[in-house]
Amino acid sequence: MSQLALALKPGQPLNRAVYAALRERILEGSISSGRLPSSRVLAEELCVSRNTVLFAYEQLAAEGYVETRRGAGTFVVPAVGTRSQARHQIETRPGARHRLSGLGARLAAAQSEATRSAGKARKPVPYDLRSAGSGYDHRTLNAWARLLARHARNLPRALPGYQPPGGFPGLREALADYLARARGLDCIPEQVIVTQGSQQGIDICLRLFVDPGDSVAIEEPHWTGYSHCLAACGARVVCIPADERGMQVEQLENHVDAKVVCVTPSHQFPTGGVMPLTRRLHLLDWAQRHRAAILEDDYDSEFRYEGHPIECLHSLDDHGRVVYLGSASRMLFPALRIGWAVVPATLSRTFEQLKATTDRDTPSLEQLAFADFIREGLLERHVRRARKRLASRRSALLEALDRELPERAEVTGASAGIHVLLRLRELPQAAFVPLRQACLARGIRIYSAAPNYAQPPAHVELLVGYASLPEEDISSAISGLREALDSLANP
Amino acid sequence: MSQLALALKPGQPLNRAVYAALRERILEGSISSGRLPSSRVLAEELCVSRNTVLFAYEQLAAEGYVETRRGAGTFVVPAVGTRSQARHQIETRPGARHRLSGLGARLAAAQSEATRSAGKARKPVPYDLRSAGSGYDHRTLNAWARLLARHARNLPRALPGYQPPGGFPGLREALADYLARARGLDCIPEQVIVTQGSQQGIDICLRLFVDPGDSVAIEEPHWTGYSHCLAACGARVVCIPADERGMQVEQLENHVDAKVVCVTPSHQFPTGGVMPLTRRLHLLDWAQRHRAAILEDDYDSEFRYEGHPIECLHSLDDHGRVVYLGSASRMLFPALRIGWAVVPATLSRTFEQLKATTDRDTPSLEQLAFADFIREGLLERHVRRARKRLASRRSALLEALDRELPERAEVTGASAGIHVLLRLRELPQAAFVPLRQACLARGIRIYSAAPNYAQPPAHVELLVGYASLPEEDISSAISGLREALDSLANP
Repeated sequence: MSQLALALKPGQPLNRAVYAALRERILEGSISSGRLPSSRVLAEELCVSRNTVLFAYEQLAAEGYVETRRGAGTFVVPAVGTRSQARHQIETRPGARHRLSGLGARLAAAQSEATRSAGKARKPVPYDLRSAGSGYDHRTLNAWARLLARHARNLPRALPGYQPPGGFPGLREALADYLARARGLDCIPEQVIVTQGSQQGIDICLRLFVDPGDSVAIEEPHWTGYSHCLAACGARVVCIPADERGMQVEQLENHVDAKVVCVTPSHQFPTGGVMPLTRRLHLLDWAQRHRAAILEDDYDSEFRYEGHPIECLHSLDDHGRVVYLGSASRMLFPALRIGWAVVPATLSRTFEQLKATTDRDTPSLEQLAFADFIREGLLERHVRRARKRLASRRSALLEALDRELPERAEVTGASAGIHVLLRLRELPQAAFVPLRQACLARGIRIYSAAPNYAQPPAHVELLVGYASLPEEDISSAISGLREALDSLANP
Repeated sequence: MSQLALALKPGQPLNRAVYAALRERILEGSISSGRLPSSRVLAEELCVSRNTVLFAYEQLAAEGYVETRRGAGTFVVPAVGTRSQARHQIETRPGARHRLSGLGARLAAAQSEATRSAGKARKPVPYDLRSAGSGYDHRTLNAWARLLARHARNLPRALPGYQPPGGFPGLREALADYLARARGLDCIPEQVIVTQGSQQGIDICLRLFVDPGDSVAIEEPHWTGYSHCLAACGARVVCIPADERGMQVEQLENHVDAKVVCVTPSHQFPTGGVMPLTRRLHLLDWAQRHRAAILEDDYDSEFRYEGHPIECLHSLDDHGRVVYLGSASRMLFPALRIGWAVVPATLSRTFEQLKATTDRDTPSLEQLAFADFIREGLLERHVRRARKRLASRRSALLEALDRELPERAEVTGASAGIHVLLRLRELPQAAFVPLRQACLARGIRIYSAAPNYAQPPAHVELLVGYASLPEEDISSAISGLREALDSLANP
C-alpha cells in the first residue's frame, strides 16, 4: 500500500482520521492487493499508536469493509473494493432522476413564487405594509412568554409525552368554549382538531376530500394557501368571483360537480366583502344538495370595526357540511403555529387519523401554554386591545389614503381585518415592479395582490396591511407611496 | 308573536340573549306574520331596555335575518323564515355522507389501532415497559427548559415570524454539523429539512414518491408509522423479512417495481439486526438500477452498546437515492416534535415546497432552542450520559431476563437502542391479552410486537423498553413478568 495520507479535521480524533483515510482507499479500490498492512506496520508508518490503528481496523470490520482471517491478516471484503468513488460530483448533477408521484412531479415542475420568497429573509424597512399578525403589544407578548416559560420550567416535573393526535384535551375544551362565546359555534371538544396553523387544516381537509381531477371551487381573488394546496392535490380549480358581498354563490349552480367550496364569508380575503345571510343559506343548501364540503376560513372575524361580528357558516349548518378553520397565528403572531379545525362529528375520527399519519401531534408546549392563555381570559383581552389599536391604525390609514390618493385609489375591505385592498386602476399591472422599487427607495415595502388571483387584473392592486405599523408611521408611509406613484408618472 | 322565552347562558350579555332567542324563532319559521314587534313593544314585554332590543335587531339585520323597511317596521327576510331547524340531531346522525377522496375513504374505513390508543390516556403503572424517550435525566431537562425559557423571554424583543419552510437556517446548519460529526453525513444545510418529528418526514417523503397502487417495500416486522402512512397513500406494500442482519435485501430482486424501500439499517426496528456493508451496498446498487428511493430511518443509531456506531446508508450513497430521517423525539423525549430529513440536493426544493403546503413551517421556539442545544454541545453531552445510563439499564434487563426466563424467552436486538424484542415461543399469540392482564395486575404494562407485523407470528413477541425504568426497577418488573407467565401456565 502506498503512503496513507491522513487528513485531520478539527476536533476529529486520530483514530477516526485513520479509519476515514483507509475507508476512502478501500472505496476507491486502490488497495490493489486486497490486503491491509498489519496494524503494527501501519502504526509505525503513520507514527501513531498501535491502538489507534486497531480501532480503525475494528471499525472497518464492524461496518463490513474488511474481514480478519485468522493468521492471514486483514482483507478488503471482495464486493466492496471494486466500487468507484464518484460521490462528490453527484449532488449538483441534475441527472439523478427520481420516479416521483403525481404530486411530487407537480411540485417539482412548479417552483411557486410563495415558497421561493418564504425562503428569503427580507431586509427590514422603516415602513412594511405587510398583512400579518394582529398588532400585538408588549402585554400580550409578555403574557405569552410567561406562560411558555411556566410550562418550559414545569417540563422536568410534568413531562408531556405524545398528545392525542387531535390535540391536548384541555386545549380542545378551551377552544370549544372560546368559539362558543366568540363565534356562536355549537360543538363538542372532540370536533375540535388542533392543527399546525390553519395551513395544516387546509391541507388535511383537502386531502380527505380531493382526488386528482376533482373540482374544487375557490373565490377569485383568494388566499394563496388554497391555490398551493390545490395544485398539490391535482384538483381542477373553479374560480368563483367575489364581489362586495363575498363569493357569488349563485354561480356555483354552473359547477355542480365541485366537491369542496373554500370560502371566507366573514371577511372575504382579500377584498373584504361580507357574505349576507341569503347567500350563506344558499351556499349551505347547495352543498347539501350536491353532497359537497365547505371549508370556512373564519379569517380575521375577531377584528371587525363596523357593525357586529357576523355569525359563521358553521353555526348555520344543519347537515355537517362545514369544516371551520381558525388560527392563532393570525389572531396573535405568525410564530405561534397553532390552528384549529372544527369538523363534522362524523368525520372527526378520520380527521384525527390523518393528522396522526401526517405528523403524529402538535407540539405540547405551545398547546399547554395556549390552553392557559384562553382559560385565563388573556386571548379575549388581547383581542379587545388589538381591535381597539387596529381600529385607530385603520382610521389613520383611511384618512391618509383619502388625503394622499383621493382620486387615484379605490379602497375596499376596510370594515374588518388587518389590511385593505387598494385598487390603482390607472396603473397597469406591469408598473408594479417599478412602483415597488420606487417605494423601497423611500423605505416602504408594498405587496401586490396579483398572486391572489388566478387571472390578475389589468391594473395594480395592493394589499395594504396596517397591523405592523404604529399609527404615527402610517401617514408617512402613505405619503411615501403617493410620492412613489408621482415619480412613476413624472420620471 | 307569542311570548319570547329568554334563555340566559352564564356570562352572556342580555342583548345577546334577546338576539339568540329571536334568531331561533326566525329560523324555526315561527314568526308567522313575518314582522317583528317594534323595539319599544318588545322591550316592555321582556322588561329590558330598548337599547338592548335595538342591539339585537341591528345584529339580526347585519347578519341578514331581518330587514328594516322605513316607516313599516322590521321584517324577516323571506328566504330565511321558511327553513326548518333540525341541527341538534344531525351531529350524531351517521347519514351525513361526504364524498371523500380515496385517501379519506381508506382512513374512514380503517380505524387503526394506533390512533385509537394514541387518543387514550394510559393510567400510570409502577413498571411501564414502553419503548420511548431516551432515559433523559434532570440535567438534560433543565438545560432544555432553560433554553426554551430564554427564547420565550426574548420573544417580545426578537419575535420570530414565519421561518423558511425548510426550517430555521441556524438549526439546519447546526444539524448538518452535528450529523457530519456524529454520523459522517456529508451534506449542506439546504439539504436538511426540519420536520415535525420523523413522522412528518415519512409522510412528506411517501407523498412525493408514491401514488395509489405503487409498490413500496418495508421490513417485516416494521415501525407502524410506515404502515399507517402507506395505507393512507394507497400503496401496494411489499414486506421483506428482516433477519439478524436487517432487511433481506436480496429478496428485492423479486420486486423490481418497488418505488421506495423503507429501512432501518443501523438497528432494525424492532428486531435489532444491523445491516452489514455488503447488504447496504447491494441495496444502494439495487435502488440505482431501478431508480428507487430509499428511506433510511436512522433510528436509535446514537445508542449503541456493542461495537461502534455503524455508518449510515446516506454516507455511502453516490447517486442521491437516500432520504435520511432522524428525530429529536427519540433522542430526547416525545414532547419535542422536531425531526429532520436529509434529502438529495436535487429534491430539496420540492421537499421544502411540500412542507410549506403541508403546514408552512415548524414552530420557531423549539427550533431556536434546539439549535442552541446542539451548538452549546448539550445534545452530545446528553447522548453520552444517556448512552451510559441506558447501557446499565440494558445490562440489568439482560441479567434479569437471563435469571428469570432462561429457557422461555429469546432476546434479540440488544446491541443498540432502547428496547429488546422478547420472543415467547411457547406462548400462542392469543395468550397476549391474558398475559397483559396478569402483568397489569402486578403493576407492569407490556407491549406486543404484533402491530409491527403484517403477518404476526404464531407466538407472543414483546417489545421490552428499558429507557423509562430506573435500573433498580427493571429486575422487579421482569420477575413480575415471570410470575405473570407462571400464573398463565398454572392458573
